[in-house]
Amino acid sequence: MSVCRRLFSSCPARKQIVSAIQPTGEPHLGNYLGALKQWVSLQDQHDNCVFGLADNHVFTSKITAKQVRQNTLKQTAVLLSLGLDPDKVILYKHSAVLQHTALAWLLSTAATSGLISKLRMLPQYKEKSQVHDNLGLLTYPVLMSADILLFHGTHIPVGEDQNIHIEFCNSIAQYFNRAYKCEVFQTVSQLLTTSPRVKSLADPSLKMSKSYGKASGVIGMLDTDDQIRKKVKKAVTDSFGPITVDQDERPGVYNLLLLLSAVSDTHFREVCRKYEYRNVVELKNDLSECLVGTVGPVRDRALELLGDIGYVEKVLSVGAEKASEIAEKNLDSIYRTIGLK
Amino acid sequence: MSVCRRLFSSCPARKQIVSAIQPTGEPHLGNYLGALKQWVSLQDQHDNCVFGLADNHVFTSKITAKQVRQNTLKQTAVLLSLGLDPDKVILYKHSAVLQHTALAWLLSTAATSGLISKLRMLPQYKEKSQVHDNLGLLTYPVLMSADILLFHGTHIPVGEDQNIHIEFCNSIAQYFNRAYKCEVFQTVSQLLTTSPRVKSLADPSLKMSKSYGKASGVIGMLDTDDQIRKKVKKAVTDSFGPITVDQDERPGVYNLLLLLSAVSDTHFREVCRKYEYRNVVELKNDLSECLVGTVGPVRDRALELLGDIGYVEKVLSVGAEKASEIAEKNLDSIYRTIGLK
Repeated sequence: MSVCRRLFSSCPARKQIVSAIQPTGEPHLGNYLGALKQWVSLQDQHDNCVFGLADNHVFTSKITAKQVRQNTLKQTAVLLSLGLDPDKVILYKHSAVLQHTALAWLLSTAATSGLISKLRMLPQYKEKSQVHDNLGLLTYPVLMSADILLFHGTHIPVGEDQNIHIEFCNSIAQYFNRAYKCEVFQTVSQLLTTSPRVKSLADPSLKMSKSYGKASGVIGMLDTDDQIRKKVKKAVTDSFGPITVDQDERPGVYNLLLLLSAVSDTHFREVCRKYEYRNVVELKNDLSECLVGTVGPVRDRALELLGDIGYVEKVLSVGAEKASEIAEKNLDSIYRTIGLK
Repeated sequence: MSVCRRLFSSCPARKQIVSAIQPTGEPHLGNYLGALKQWVSLQDQHDNCVFGLADNHVFTSKITAKQVRQNTLKQTAVLLSLGLDPDKVILYKHSAVLQHTALAWLLSTAATSGLISKLRMLPQYKEKSQVHDNLGLLTYPVLMSADILLFHGTHIPVGEDQNIHIEFCNSIAQYFNRAYKCEVFQTVSQLLTTSPRVKSLADPSLKMSKSYGKASGVIGMLDTDDQIRKKVKKAVTDSFGPITVDQDERPGVYNLLLLLSAVSDTHFREVCRKYEYRNVVELKNDLSECLVGTVGPVRDRALELLGDIGYVEKVLSVGAEKASEIAEKNLDSIYRTIGLK
């Protein structure tokens, strides 16, 4: 137990923010509202935030490694454009820090049959395995747990739909602690973000995500002003006439209101009050201009950065060095605690 | 395809021997006859043999990390005592080279549902999961494939019972090549060794292995002369009288003949001719002395080495450096070939 105590004394009770985003596709508004925007605020509120481009995870989808690499660079450029400061946070891609998969292996040997069954029951596996089943897809919550536990993450800023993965992370951490009779890992909490769950413009029953539905439903953070305007114009609503607020009956209109509230940083109720009984076209026009005003400058800076790809790569490699240093120390400490070293 | 060609031109068609042993328990005669002895011969026949202590795999068994560490050091000491030359071969422990698990993750994302079902059907999983089921136990053939493919192993010296794992390795390599439309990995062949499949002295229906059956059935490479003699004396045979050679009816006696043949490097038929119709006690006495003569000096040197644990650790860390250098280059090359870098 003395080793355990030593481990803890080097990890005082403080908030360790750890988060990651999968570079599955080009960065889009769903990413921006759901994660990237929060990251930029979190960097000023907490020391040592660890933000990762979870490229390892993307291999479970049917996309080429070349696309993964390009998407990673694009996501990074957008993050930098949004004001994420690589001197304040650790920003890196997971595949450059090999301790992620090393810890995932160790965790997987502590996951007994109950947890294996749980993996098969996770909604994301059930859903995604219909499209492209593979072993990585089944075991990826273990890797996700390693992504968090490797940095002794305590607070994970994720949406409500990720709650099940945080629970899984805590389960596997407990299994591990029990298997090695040592409190190696502490409990991880969800840092609930206030981001709205914005939906696809093409189908408001789906999340705005590159993984689901049509590309025309997703506003890309690198879209031209013209593309943004066209997508909003074509956004699926209904023929019920002037705007009323009804999530179930009018999900398309509701989603536009939600988007405008989120992008303009205005309270949802205020937006509803302003647009109720007005024409949907007016709402679409205002949303378009608001999006162009928000996305436009970010896109322009990101494209400029992507013109000097060497710089973006350098940011990631410096981040990987910083992340590796901590990851190496932490994995070494885990190995020592369980007695492998 | 030009990248593929480049990759291959740097990997000319030559035999690359890759093998590993799990430090599940203390080194024993089964390990010696089944692998360690071959490794010592192979080092003189081939350049660049890569020999690993597969400590990562042991975590799938219910043994402590501390035991894994100690067993790894003991196996290494025995290997050095047998004459394995760390200047001629690469000798290291897998957990010190993180590229193993990194490649295993990548391979797992290429393993589609057919291969997942195959994992569940592998006899070793079926058998071991009865005792201690965990996710690592299910996925460990993927890690084993990575252990081989990371070094572009072409010839793997393993017993016949491991054939199924070599087949699995080739399957997953093909899945990977197909997924990434590139011939990243070549076919791996089994280098069939002539080692006899020696059985437990306590139960000749079981393999001589620390994982199965009683400890009294296993001759340890660090056993004292007295322990060896006692174990052989107590070896289970039968009450059929003078020696006859019949594997099915007299498996205990057959196993003793096999052991004597293997340890004395004498043809099995010659041993049978010599002992047929003689008393089992005579065979046991001769086997005891032969074992003491073989194991004794190895044990003495190994214990001496283990008295200077720093030296054994140094051998492993130098080996890990050499292995890491190649592993890093190879993983980097794989990443480049598939387009991740």
